[in-house]
Amino acid sequence: MTLLDRLRDLLGPAHVLTGDDTAGYRDDWTGHYHWTPLAVLRPGSTEEVSAVLRLASETGTPVVPVGGNTGLNGGAAAEGALMLSLARMNRLREVNPAARTITAEAGVILETLHDEAARHGLVFPLTFGAKGSAMVGGFLSTNAGGSNVLRYGNARALCLGIEVVLADGRVMNLLTGLHKDNSGYDLRDLMIGAEGTLGVITAAVLKLAPAPVAHATALLGMDTLAGALALLHRLQAGSGGAVEAFEFMPAHYMERLGRLKPELACPFEPCAVNVMVEIATTIAGEDPVERLETLLEAALEDGSLTEAVVATSEAQRRRLWTMRESAAEITFVQPVMVDTDVALPLDRLQEFLTRMEERLATLDPEAEVFLVAHLGDGNIHYSVYPGRDEASHLAAIRAAIAGEAVALGGSFSAEHGVGLSKRATLAAHKDPVALSVMAAIKAALDPKGILNPGKMLP
Amino acid sequence: MTLLDRLRDLLGPAHVLTGDDTAGYRDDWTGHYHWTPLAVLRPGSTEEVSAVLRLASETGTPVVPVGGNTGLNGGAAAEGALMLSLARMNRLREVNPAARTITAEAGVILETLHDEAARHGLVFPLTFGAKGSAMVGGFLSTNAGGSNVLRYGNARALCLGIEVVLADGRVMNLLTGLHKDNSGYDLRDLMIGAEGTLGVITAAVLKLAPAPVAHATALLGMDTLAGALALLHRLQAGSGGAVEAFEFMPAHYMERLGRLKPELACPFEPCAVNVMVEIATTIAGEDPVERLETLLEAALEDGSLTEAVVATSEAQRRRLWTMRESAAEITFVQPVMVDTDVALPLDRLQEFLTRMEERLATLDPEAEVFLVAHLGDGNIHYSVYPGRDEASHLAAIRAAIAGEAVALGGSFSAEHGVGLSKRATLAAHKDPVALSVMAAIKAALDPKGILNPGKMLP
Ligand SMILES: Cc1cc2nc3c(=O)[nH]c(=O)nc-3n(C[C@H](O)[C@H](O)[C@H](O)COP(=O)(O)OP(=O)(O)OC[C@H]3O[C@@H](n4cnc5c(N)ncnc54)[C@H](O)[C@@H]3O)c2cc1C
Ligand SMILES: Cc1cc2nc3c(=O)[nH]c(=O)nc-3n(C[C@H](O)[C@H](O)[C@H](O)COP(=O)(O)OP(=O)(O)OC[C@H]3O[C@@H](n4cnc5c(N)ncnc54)[C@H](O)[C@@H]3O)c2cc1C
Repeated sequence: MTLLDRLRDLLGPAHVLTGDDTAGYRDDWTGHYHWTPLAVLRPGSTEEVSAVLRLASETGTPVVPVGGNTGLNGGAAAEGALMLSLARMNRLREVNPAARTITAEAGVILETLHDEAARHGLVFPLTFGAKGSAMVGGFLSTNAGGSNVLRYGNARALCLGIEVVLADGRVMNLLTGLHKDNSGYDLRDLMIGAEGTLGVITAAVLKLAPAPVAHATALLGMDTLAGALALLHRLQAGSGGAVEAFEFMPAHYMERLGRLKPELACPFEPCAVNVMVEIATTIAGEDPVERLETLLEAALEDGSLTEAVVATSEAQRRRLWTMRESAAEITFVQPVMVDTDVALPLDRLQEFLTRMEERLATLDPEAEVFLVAHLGDGNIHYSVYPGRDEASHLAAIRAAIAGEAVALGGSFSAEHGVGLSKRATLAAHKDPVALSVMAAIKAALDPKGILNPGKMLP
Repeated sequence: MTLLDRLRDLLGPAHVLTGDDTAGYRDDWTGHYHWTPLAVLRPGSTEEVSAVLRLASETGTPVVPVGGNTGLNGGAAAEGALMLSLARMNRLREVNPAARTITAEAGVILETLHDEAARHGLVFPLTFGAKGSAMVGGFLSTNAGGSNVLRYGNARALCLGIEVVLADGRVMNLLTGLHKDNSGYDLRDLMIGAEGTLGVITAAVLKLAPAPVAHATALLGMDTLAGALALLHRLQAGSGGAVEAFEFMPAHYMERLGRLKPELACPFEPCAVNVMVEIATTIAGEDPVERLETLLEAALEDGSLTEAVVATSEAQRRRLWTMRESAAEITFVQPVMVDTDVALPLDRLQEFLTRMEERLATLDPEAEVFLVAHLGDGNIHYSVYPGRDEASHLAAIRAAIAGEAVALGGSFSAEHGVGLSKRATLAAHKDPVALSVMAAIKAALDPKGILNPGKMLP
């Protein structure tokens, strides 16, 4: 019996797609990556995932797990491999408002978690543009971030336990809902963010939080990033840690936004540093707008803030968010570009920008920089429109950005992970001892190298 | 040249202790474990730690790292091994209030971090009884908890980056101060909580938080644990997540406390469930006492709370804390006992207590139970004074406690780790696949098994 026949026996023929039936599974979201899988498998249970991996392991067949296929680094590319779609494993195994947890299978869509939490007056705080497609297994395997990280942490911080099928088909059950558990190595955090190279996540226990009852949102203008950071600290202390977003848009961002979308023009003469801030409260009856205004007035008075516009209606709040959420649209207006996702220590963002200006002045004097940042997380989406477009030149710019970030104690990948697109960058910039430890762990857990081969590890 | 001579050459003779000079390094804090080390080494730098491990690895000599030696599980016992004391590596490499980080070497004492943070109007929130002795390397290697976990998380959540020397002497530099970094496997969280079996932590970047400016503290009485959990959720939402402690003391705790320390008697007729709660605010001018009182009044009115006494002075606040902090003293009054540190999902604490009552009724009808819990973390310190004291009987009680906790989705070690004392329990109760993954990682990173051999792993 061929491998595919055995898989059809295992999963039922309807759940082993080949040929034209794999049409939806041959390209990534960015359009940069295309592949032809050996087959697309759609197991319906952990047992079936386990059986598939046992078979793949026996036969040395590569397996690439896939969730919503919204990853941005080519991590789900599956040339000649079995693509293991978790989409059918979309059960909520348990919703436990008393313990503030939800146990979801890997194929549950992020937005479904939002809806389910809302039904109980709670939130699952992780959120980003792809929420209607990204799945539990995918956002955990990429340790996704998004716009609430400042307050709630990224995917790893929101996950209490996981169930994982290892390369040889064994099921590792770490499905606890515990807040404290010092019973051995932290294998959960090792699997989270491993991008499908160490195991297939089949379910997770996720943390819920109380839902905010009111928000206060403002657009602020000031002169320096150091000033913005100091202000962030004041707002954090002055709101009891209630800052949910602190998003940096430089003058050039506001200028382009106003030009391309006049209805979203900056309400004041853009400053060097413009920040959209939001605080939220879970306290019934509390007025976060009043609190934010008081804090901003003090900052305006002592000169640490130049401009401040507070939203006074939900429509105005939405407008401020749309200004920030238009980032992708107004970044991708020019076809040839370098876009990156770097992280810096909070106090070194300006130094990074200054150094990059110097680097680009010699590398490519015609280059134009465009950026937007989750400032509170030290996370900059730094893009460059180069003066010329040879691949080697684009690569040199990319290398300069990664190099300067790392030299300042930063990272070349804040939230989008490594996958295919940053594999060479990882090889160049990661601590070499850490790289060899990663390789040793990979070899120990997946000795045949069947799990998402060619991704992440150099 | 003998191994010890080579070590003296490396570190200087003053930093290689043998014979009587090792007197302070032959017993653990609990007094249960005693050993004779081959030598005690006191390296002064990461380079020296690296050189020691290279030598140990070449010669296959076991190495046991030690910090403050306050661990409670025998993890630093070092029979015939080189004890590697990090105490001389006590430099603060960087204090960065702007980025809210502190980079400390492994031998820095926890209390020193508290003092340094306070100098900048900040806190390093991790705290527990041994804070005057426990060190950075030790509290990270045990992923210590303590009384602020509910708000700030345990040691792992407070650490951004680490520097680790591996078994073969290579230095792994993961010393970043980043809040977002998806550049490869999470090796930091793997090393944290590994109890010295995977590497020696030599330095860490730790997170600081704004210091609270005011506290509100109360003692509450109610009927059920389910009611207490519901109240915790209300207080969390109603304070914007400002609950710092939520500590459960059952009626039998209050009864014994009042008997042994009349000055700490419960201010009301003890209820089945008594809870010490504290909320804190970082907001200048805010009155957390008023906020807490309002929340408690509502709970008293709707009957979810029976008793409430709010501290109105710092002296009263101290008294409430002392009631809780007397736990160790009033637990250890009887010589023969079983003391444990289990964790349960938040909604299954009562079920655990009921099941244990049933188990003890058959196992040992004369047994007396005594307990206290970090209720907000689901962490119970569950002690039993047995009716008879044969070792096998004590072991049976311990096994029943671990078994019932695990059967309810809990853990047999919430915060004290595994070390020597819970090695057999780990072997009996950890998911077997997880155990074998732990063993595979250990073999991959420490192939000669020289790092803290015989600890944690079965
Ligand atoms: C419009 C848009 C906005 C975005 N915004 C953000 C943002 O703000 N922040 C951010 O961090 N990311 C963002 N992303 C990228 C984000 O990483 C992904 O959207 C998401 O986390 C991946 O989920 P997915 O289910 O689509 O995973 P996929 O794309 O299917 O897979 C991602 C990776 O995980 C692996 N994988 C998938 N499922 C499993 C599993 N069950 N077990 C093991 N491995 C698995 C895959 O092999 C692949 O390597 C955005 C993407 C888009 C398209
Ligand atoms: C009075 C008292 C109260 C306590 N309260 C709490 C509490 O509330 N919550 C809680 O979680 N714990 C508590 N503990 C235990 C706690 O785990 C330890 O006090 C502390 O975390 C260990 O720090 P240490 O420096 O003393 O480590 P040690 O005891 O020296 O070592 C602990 C373990 O870590 C390893 N280790 C030490 N340094 C390193 C290093 N640099 N690299 C690698 N491995 C290393 C050792 O080999 C050992 O296995 C308490 C202990 C006492 C005595």
